[in-house]
Amino acid sequence: MSLMQARQWDKSDPLAAKRDAFYLPPGKIYVDGNSLGPLPLSVKKRLTQVVDHQWGEDLITSWNQHQWITLAQSVGARIAPLIGAKHDEVICADSTSINLFKLLCAALNMRSDRSRILSEKGNFPTDLYMAQGLESLIGNRARLELYEPQDLLDQLDESVAVVMLTQVNFRSGRLHDMAAITKACHKAGALVIWDLAHSAGALPVDLNACEVDMAVGCGYKYLNGGPGAPAFAYVAKRHHSKLFQPLTGWMGHASPFSFETKYTPAKGLNQLLVGTPSVLALSALDAALEVFDSLDMQQLRKKSVAMTQAFVQWIDSDERTADLQLGSPRDPAQRGSQLAWHHPHAYSICQAMIERGVIADFRAPDILRMGFTPLYLSFEDIWLAKETLAEIMAGQVYLRPRFQHRQQVT
Amino acid sequence: MSLMQARQWDKSDPLAAKRDAFYLPPGKIYVDGNSLGPLPLSVKKRLTQVVDHQWGEDLITSWNQHQWITLAQSVGARIAPLIGAKHDEVICADSTSINLFKLLCAALNMRSDRSRILSEKGNFPTDLYMAQGLESLIGNRARLELYEPQDLLDQLDESVAVVMLTQVNFRSGRLHDMAAITKACHKAGALVIWDLAHSAGALPVDLNACEVDMAVGCGYKYLNGGPGAPAFAYVAKRHHSKLFQPLTGWMGHASPFSFETKYTPAKGLNQLLVGTPSVLALSALDAALEVFDSLDMQQLRKKSVAMTQAFVQWIDSDERTADLQLGSPRDPAQRGSQLAWHHPHAYSICQAMIERGVIADFRAPDILRMGFTPLYLSFEDIWLAKETLAEIMAGQVYLRPRFQHRQQVT
Repeated sequence: MSLMQARQWDKSDPLAAKRDAFYLPPGKIYVDGNSLGPLPLSVKKRLTQVVDHQWGEDLITSWNQHQWITLAQSVGARIAPLIGAKHDEVICADSTSINLFKLLCAALNMRSDRSRILSEKGNFPTDLYMAQGLESLIGNRARLELYEPQDLLDQLDESVAVVMLTQVNFRSGRLHDMAAITKACHKAGALVIWDLAHSAGALPVDLNACEVDMAVGCGYKYLNGGPGAPAFAYVAKRHHSKLFQPLTGWMGHASPFSFETKYTPAKGLNQLLVGTPSVLALSALDAALEVFDSLDMQQLRKKSVAMTQAFVQWIDSDERTADLQLGSPRDPAQRGSQLAWHHPHAYSICQAMIERGVIADFRAPDILRMGFTPLYLSFEDIWLAKETLAEIMAGQVYLRPRFQHRQQVT
Repeated sequence: MSLMQARQWDKSDPLAAKRDAFYLPPGKIYVDGNSLGPLPLSVKKRLTQVVDHQWGEDLITSWNQHQWITLAQSVGARIAPLIGAKHDEVICADSTSINLFKLLCAALNMRSDRSRILSEKGNFPTDLYMAQGLESLIGNRARLELYEPQDLLDQLDESVAVVMLTQVNFRSGRLHDMAAITKACHKAGALVIWDLAHSAGALPVDLNACEVDMAVGCGYKYLNGGPGAPAFAYVAKRHHSKLFQPLTGWMGHASPFSFETKYTPAKGLNQLLVGTPSVLALSALDAALEVFDSLDMQQLRKKSVAMTQAFVQWIDSDERTADLQLGSPRDPAQRGSQLAWHHPHAYSICQAMIERGVIADFRAPDILRMGFTPLYLSFEDIWLAKETLAEIMAGQVYLRPRFQHRQQVT
């Protein structure tokens, strides 16, 4: 019954054709696009062009001839509409971690009479680590404090400089109310930095409408820019004139090619640039973003919600999977595009799935995590993923001691 | 006469076959490899493999299956022998600018009772800018002071925490005496950070023999890793146990996949990692380094010196180029693998050369700069470059107002 239903949905799926934009290995179902997006065919084409023609033939002259020098800005401008930002409010550079460091420093500069940085205990660790590194550097001018999400807003007062949160939790997929939290922070005079690692490209984000101050995000998950793709940073235009961050590299200088001895920050977001960016990595991300060019993010969200709802219902109504405990919010409005399930043998179950061609992932200590990515997954795909999971659990094949614990990257 | 001589030299050049490892565009002579190395054929092959097979087919599992997770270390280990370092003293990450920031912080941590950072006025600006950014962050715990090279060592005393210098000057190609300067710094109890941007891959560097504390370097110049390739960082093993830097990202954590709330630095150089690195960019650099695998750096240096010496002699003895004033040291032992010439019309001369297929570069205000890269340039190539330059100057074609000033990246 449910397979026929899934096929019906696929027939009327307005996003079905988007799948053709990706290379998807035969015999595999990829429910880990929340960790690393698959290969867009446009990237293959672009990399050949950049390597053979731009680098190979035109060499150093490509910095001007092929606009390498403005790639950080043009890729940022391409991400902007996906997150509700203006074209010059987003720039592509470095990693999410390093961009967060820059923005934390910038936020503390703008609130120099305040020192508290609030975040939640379950935030993605690198965000917390970068704040801890800043603490180690500037002492009591930065104090990171961690709370449970429900207690966080009670902590807001005139001593809080900045609240940093990840919109969609990397483990549970829980979705924060960006508008409400941002509003509450502003009421206390605090700035807010949102990490969009698990939301950019996964659901509609409207930074401008929510009056978000700053944001960072990841290029290699839902944006499909390739392993370790460059990250992005957003700063609302109203803050550009007061922006200053201390990783003052030559690409962020007002006039990099004057080779002046003294640093003068470039105007706007350009001052977030540090060293020379990887043109290969930026070009790959740029090409990957083509798939979003004519995309309605509301439509994408609609399919994403339909997929996670179907999957939860299938698991709930199948007695073979009764031992899986949903770790994500049950209300689709309160989660992103991924689902987490607790199970004491989650690691082995995940390995058994991978062995059978369903690429999910495991998060310590007991989470089986799956990403539902509407651009290249069909309802039939996720039905097959469910059936594989159910068969593994029914046969208890995960209890056979053939899998070894190995590390995996988000 | 000199052309025949050049051809003779090419016939007996033991490095002549290395040229076949690169794609060199027909009709062009590339004397700007000091700015961006040309495309090694191994990179084309590797990128196809990484994109199609590793990313395309094996997706997220490639982090383990294809050792993406240790690329930063393995590429570092491949650079190590080129700079006289042990395999676990070099790691590949981020940009030169960001690596310098980490090492400046680490050095100040190790000399916490000192705050002076010495450098020279003519250092590459991003090195100075990063130190200025650190000043802006930690106030009087870091004080950058700039001197002329000949005055710098006189400033050494017990208040100097660290001396940071670029071994080969980006404008003039002047080569510092790494052994002597490092020794003098150590005598005063100061640490030293060498920037190897224009020396790694260009000449033999022996960090261990010189007892250098720390170093950074660039992947896209003489190492040919592609535009904006990842940079590297070196820290002498004796300092590893005291190493701490504040850009504390999850890839530098002792146990990144435990997702702990508190940062604990990894042992050794791994703690210099911050965010997830670009696998495409690291793989390209890794493949580019293959050309160095069986290379004798002394032999490379010998050809480099022969090339710059021949070029200087040709220019000196040609009356058409009498107006060029050598901006590099005349003694080849005191310069790297590039030459700089002053001329009031240097910009237009450079543009005329490029138009005629000789890709040199210009540095403000009046420098014509050429890189002599023994891996892929023949003596005939540089003779042709010289002849092109001489003809341009004889015909004064650079005075015709057809060239517009545009920016170029080092």
